[in-house]
Amino acid sequence: MSDTRTARSEERRAAILRAALEVIAERGYRGASLAAVAERVGLTQQGLLHHFPTKEALLLAVLEARDQWDAVPGSEWRIDLLGSLVEYNAMRPGIVQTFSALLGESVTEGHPAREFFTRRYVGTRESMARVLRAEYGDRLPGGLTPERAAPLLVAVMDGLQYQWLLDPESVDMPSAFRDFLALIEGGEPDDGRGGGG
Amino acid sequence: MSDTRTARSEERRAAILRAALEVIAERGYRGASLAAVAERVGLTQQGLLHHFPTKEALLLAVLEARDQWDAVPGSEWRIDLLGSLVEYNAMRPGIVQTFSALLGESVTEGHPAREFFTRRYVGTRESMARVLRAEYGDRLPGGLTPERAAPLLVAVMDGLQYQWLLDPESVDMPSAFRDFLALIEGGEPDDGRGGGG
Repeated sequence: MSDTRTARSEERRAAILRAALEVIAERGYRGASLAAVAERVGLTQQGLLHHFPTKEALLLAVLEARDQWDAVPGSEWRIDLLGSLVEYNAMRPGIVQTFSALLGESVTEGHPAREFFTRRYVGTRESMARVLRAEYGDRLPGGLTPERAAPLLVAVMDGLQYQWLLDPESVDMPSAFRDFLALIEGGEPDDGRGGGG
Repeated sequence: MSDTRTARSEERRAAILRAALEVIAERGYRGASLAAVAERVGLTQQGLLHHFPTKEALLLAVLEARDQWDAVPGSEWRIDLLGSLVEYNAMRPGIVQTFSALLGESVTEGHPAREFFTRRYVGTRESMARVLRAEYGDRLPGGLTPERAAPLLVAVMDGLQYQWLLDPESVDMPSAFRDFLALIEGGEPDDGRGGGG
């Protein structure tokens, strides 16, 4: 009986996260109110609060779920997939905006998202270093060790997102990120900026 | 008479910004309330509101003032000064936190800081490209044009600030930024991570 209740609660939770993702995609971070998400999933706001007590808790759960959806099994990761991930992110500004807004808030004292992001970055830097080591060994062609390139890789992804969200007409996020990949790979950047051939 | 009033108002404004900067340095973004700043500068909260109607307006004015204080006359800029700027920023987490938190908020719909950051990034990318062109000509040793390297330079600075603010023990922001400078300069990264000789 308890298992059934747990399973139902898990299903409900997953449905709420899907609804939240839809609302975020349509209305962005500010439009993603608990009321809007509750309406989308057919719950009262009180019912939604039972699963997620605050807007921050709900949005953090959406970001955690996105990390799981985006995950690629460890041995399958290749550095060029990162370029594709950035291209994919350029097609979903709502979730990127939510990530970037929460990351900004998280650096303030006592913010509920602080622990999530601190933990996430430790993990992201480690997994990026692993991917780089698998591809290049102990030193990248550009001269850095995987451990020293990893925080730069993550920083460029995050930093470009802010510039792109503020001014999508001026900033070609996927091309800029591929320029960075070419830098750490020590190769010449691609001169045709289309991203294609 | 009107000139005197204007001058007095400008002086008062400058005193408020200095007080705000002190409060930010001591208490961070969240602690920098209008009430705390008013008390520091010896004004009533009502008196402060006459100069800055909201906390956002005050913090944006602080960031604009910082940009002016940090400014180096155009012809004096050199790319290695950026490494020093990042080192300097690592000594003043309060203002970096305020910048990063407001940047995060600014990407949400209709935020009052959005225009400031959008305009700032257009200007920052342009001036970084100018500095890079003055130093390297039309192509950097790493292969990028100044215009393509500039958004990456800005992105790395911003992105590293988030990782560092969240986890200053794990992230050596100045060393990581110097690694990036070595990358775009096409040279070997410095192996002694101390930042010194």
